[in-house]
Amino acid sequence: MYKLVLIRHGESTWNLENRFTGWTDVDLTATGVEQAKQAGRLIKDAGLDFDVAYTSMLKRAVWTLWHCLDQMDRTWLPVVHSWRLNERHYGALQGLNKADMAKQYGDEQVLVWRRSYDTPPPPLEANDPRSERSDVRYARLKTEDVPLTECLKDTVARVLPVWNDSIAPAIKAGKRVVIAAHGNSIRALVKYLDNIADDAIVGVNIPNGIPLVYELDADLKPIKSYYLGDAEAAARAAAAVASQGKA
Amino acid sequence: MYKLVLIRHGESTWNLENRFTGWTDVDLTATGVEQAKQAGRLIKDAGLDFDVAYTSMLKRAVWTLWHCLDQMDRTWLPVVHSWRLNERHYGALQGLNKADMAKQYGDEQVLVWRRSYDTPPPPLEANDPRSERSDVRYARLKTEDVPLTECLKDTVARVLPVWNDSIAPAIKAGKRVVIAAHGNSIRALVKYLDNIADDAIVGVNIPNGIPLVYELDADLKPIKSYYLGDAEAAARAAAAVASQGKA
Repeated sequence: MYKLVLIRHGESTWNLENRFTGWTDVDLTATGVEQAKQAGRLIKDAGLDFDVAYTSMLKRAVWTLWHCLDQMDRTWLPVVHSWRLNERHYGALQGLNKADMAKQYGDEQVLVWRRSYDTPPPPLEANDPRSERSDVRYARLKTEDVPLTECLKDTVARVLPVWNDSIAPAIKAGKRVVIAAHGNSIRALVKYLDNIADDAIVGVNIPNGIPLVYELDADLKPIKSYYLGDAEAAARAAAAVASQGKA
Repeated sequence: MYKLVLIRHGESTWNLENRFTGWTDVDLTATGVEQAKQAGRLIKDAGLDFDVAYTSMLKRAVWTLWHCLDQMDRTWLPVVHSWRLNERHYGALQGLNKADMAKQYGDEQVLVWRRSYDTPPPPLEANDPRSERSDVRYARLKTEDVPLTECLKDTVARVLPVWNDSIAPAIKAGKRVVIAAHGNSIRALVKYLDNIADDAIVGVNIPNGIPLVYELDADLKPIKSYYLGDAEAAARAAAAVASQGKA
């Protein structure tokens, strides 16, 4: 049996401002830093340990991992950065306020953009200054791999290769893995692992900074999964995520 | 022509307490964090950039690198951790106060232990609670590779393989490299690069948190080297390092 730990980054400045973030590279807030440290303490107290860490190219996930590893005295662990673990790209909504958008377009439209499985938000123009196609960190990717918008289905499609090609083989080779990533890249993994239907994933929300443990069988099928720490606090935090898109 | 940047970690808690640190894994002070951030700003302002970072297994170097990369918006860079870049092992002196040792044994003996090329301090006992031989981060090493004490000659011998096998090939492959490490692992590299004689390296001191740039020719021979920022401040900081072992 294997254990896998998933951590959504701690609160970011744009979580706090209730703005659509996507691939925009924003910092953790002081609360987010504390959540990351607390995640590390919970993992250490649970007696969990890792051989390798995966994270995204975005600093809110990277810093969450770093603070977490520091609390575990594991700052020396190898870390793999993959753009495939980045947050879902929010297209032309990136930078805009979720509640403002809800007032303008209605709760329902915003919920569709936030949570529909296969309806992406309006795309960024490729020459929009917000586009990441000119960002040096993605310079080695094929242009079309740097999205201009994504629905969750798109995110699942680009997350799964790093799972199949790197993370799953590492786990099967006996490496204990932690993944510090984002609400939607983690939802993509959860959907795949738990085989959640396209129309059911909308109800799954991942709270910031609370380690989610999967116990997996030899074929990496989940035996069970649970949040570390206070289960009620995790449920409340997930409910708060669900309500962010409302006017 | 290639550029290589070396950074000694920012001030650590044991630098501040004037204690022999070696492989003991101590934190940066608030000053050390500031030095690390300032190093990142100096590197960014100098228009330098990197493709890969190397650091040790010790958190004062790792955190220095992380803060530095954050200031450069490069938290997503691949980082290689090598025990070969660890500080010189200080043997039975680890944890002891440098000035106390100088009072007890005399400035000269302490200078020999600190700076002699080939006289190591008294070794730790293998079962000393301070020994790193039971530390999980070194579990995959051969027992004899985890030192019980080292002179600088020993440090040079264990640093050079990571230079020859990994760092030098990366530079020759066109990768821009930064190394965040320690006073003596950097002195080992400087001795090798600048071909400094065994009896001359005693006069070379590396200040905390000031980026040292090497411009290297196609054979990785130095064309020139210089500290970023205020040259006088770097010289003063190096002189302060030299005086630490005095009663």
